[in-house]
Amino acid sequence: MKKIINDPANVVVESLRGLAAAHPDLVRVQTEPDVVVRADAPVQGKVAVISGGGSGHEPMHAGYVGQGMLSAAVPGAVFTSPTPDAVQAAINETNGGAGALLIVKNYTGDVLNFETAAELAGADGIDVRSVVVDDDVAVQDSTHTAGRRGVGGTVLAEKIVGAAAERGADLDTCERLARKVVSQVRSMGMALTAPTVPHVGEPSFELGPQEMEIGIGIHGEPGRERVALTDADGIVQRLLDPILSDLPFESGDRVLLFTNSMGGTPLLELYLAHGIAERKLADRGIQVQRRLVGPYITSLEMQGISLTLLKLDDELTELWDAPVRTPALCW
Amino acid sequence: MKKIINDPANVVVESLRGLAAAHPDLVRVQTEPDVVVRADAPVQGKVAVISGGGSGHEPMHAGYVGQGMLSAAVPGAVFTSPTPDAVQAAINETNGGAGALLIVKNYTGDVLNFETAAELAGADGIDVRSVVVDDDVAVQDSTHTAGRRGVGGTVLAEKIVGAAAERGADLDTCERLARKVVSQVRSMGMALTAPTVPHVGEPSFELGPQEMEIGIGIHGEPGRERVALTDADGIVQRLLDPILSDLPFESGDRVLLFTNSMGGTPLLELYLAHGIAERKLADRGIQVQRRLVGPYITSLEMQGISLTLLKLDDELTELWDAPVRTPALCW
Repeated sequence: MKKIINDPANVVVESLRGLAAAHPDLVRVQTEPDVVVRADAPVQGKVAVISGGGSGHEPMHAGYVGQGMLSAAVPGAVFTSPTPDAVQAAINETNGGAGALLIVKNYTGDVLNFETAAELAGADGIDVRSVVVDDDVAVQDSTHTAGRRGVGGTVLAEKIVGAAAERGADLDTCERLARKVVSQVRSMGMALTAPTVPHVGEPSFELGPQEMEIGIGIHGEPGRERVALTDADGIVQRLLDPILSDLPFESGDRVLLFTNSMGGTPLLELYLAHGIAERKLADRGIQVQRRLVGPYITSLEMQGISLTLLKLDDELTELWDAPVRTPALCW
Repeated sequence: MKKIINDPANVVVESLRGLAAAHPDLVRVQTEPDVVVRADAPVQGKVAVISGGGSGHEPMHAGYVGQGMLSAAVPGAVFTSPTPDAVQAAINETNGGAGALLIVKNYTGDVLNFETAAELAGADGIDVRSVVVDDDVAVQDSTHTAGRRGVGGTVLAEKIVGAAAERGADLDTCERLARKVVSQVRSMGMALTAPTVPHVGEPSFELGPQEMEIGIGIHGEPGRERVALTDADGIVQRLLDPILSDLPFESGDRVLLFTNSMGGTPLLELYLAHGIAERKLADRGIQVQRRLVGPYITSLEMQGISLTLLKLDDELTELWDAPVRTPALCW
């Protein structure tokens, strides 16, 4: 294993120290339990928007803490759900009296631990709602989930709900928006290489020198099929087809296209794939009106990409465009 | 070779198409010759700030085109200098009547081709100046250079000079600021793995499973030494020591610390390294007042990091803080 780390057991807390040092104007980090909150938390009268999950997917979620997006992020160990007490601490640290919305990726441990934290906070008199994101069309169940996995759509939900909360939307509105995003977003990913979890020390799976995994999960979970490597046109087609037919997305639809790097993909290749996806969507009469391109939900050093499509309307578009200022997203 | 590409010969132009599609509000792309310019170019009365070089280092340089940074970027083939006519086209496209400053990384081909373009544009009556960045303390000469290589300091120079030009600074002032940054910035990098150039098809060098290269260049050029992999504390120490002793940086100095990923390094590891560098600098009495952390000058999928330190004063700090809006940098 070749990594820039000290003791594998301390990777997350040491990385959070670096994050805190790098962005003192945006975030505050506390450890044991590990929680990243907005520098100005709690914001009185504002709904707290909270997400989290295993580490190793950076910048998600800690990189999205700040104005116009998350109130707090709860990072677990690498590829491991955060504990209920950590989620509860995030709720308490960001509680401005208007309740909290938890945006939870659909993995069994995350759903359970966020739900437990919501119940504990509820018993303390805080109104907490949870919305589960399950946008990955690749497989119906996986080694980590019952039902579909939560992937790229999570980033879009965090941005859109965060924008609404920043403007003073109430908890009902924030919950409604999160459910709307979930209902209108679909994703699928692929990988050329496997990630290596620090405390495991070897790649999560093996792929031959001419193989790729289509429908990969963000923890390196198996996808739909292991096939021979094709060119970029073929790769993009294999991701787009199942996304488009699932919702479905149809000619005339307005969409946000999110072309994501799994971590180790050069930006040169990522933009190339994005350009292909734009052309293929235009050919189908689908109007790409907003874009996000970059490594935003990753799987450590895994090489690969995912595509996410969100069906837009005026409400979602306007919230997407609203100002955001976080370590990883800014406009 | 596992890459998300079509024909290796078309990687750059296909990637530029994706960039143009992704950021129509910020940049405009023209091909043959390949040039990326601000969407609103030319800006009358403003100094044009132009950079460029081989592709494969994304987001540098095209990702820095926009308000408050570059007027244009000139991408060559992967790891290959752009031609003089491409640089000249960038000058012509962005000429607002106030002259152009070329920020050139010190590689033999870049220096020669930018200089030729400056002469051609000068013959057309445009006042063009060039400033060469050579901040890499690792080696005195390399396979690509006479003298030190230009690396991370280039990004900082582009931001600071771009901010000044945006405010209406004249060409003399822009040139003075670029030279000031060059005189006060030092960098050094390391790698765990090698990049693979698409049209070559195999890794640029081989490193054993327990080896790292200290002082690596951004084209995978050899560094100071190939040594056994150490922990992150040891890696950061090996990069910081030669940087600090070179300028030198001393107790009481105010600095910007730029912790850069070479492309394939997980953000988890990058922030971990950044936190260590912050602590080590604090221990030496050096005040880190500004930070940049991320994959900003890369070598395709190479895993590794570089550290860059810029000695700050009020003038540089204020220009660093000025608003910037580009595909890759925003605040």
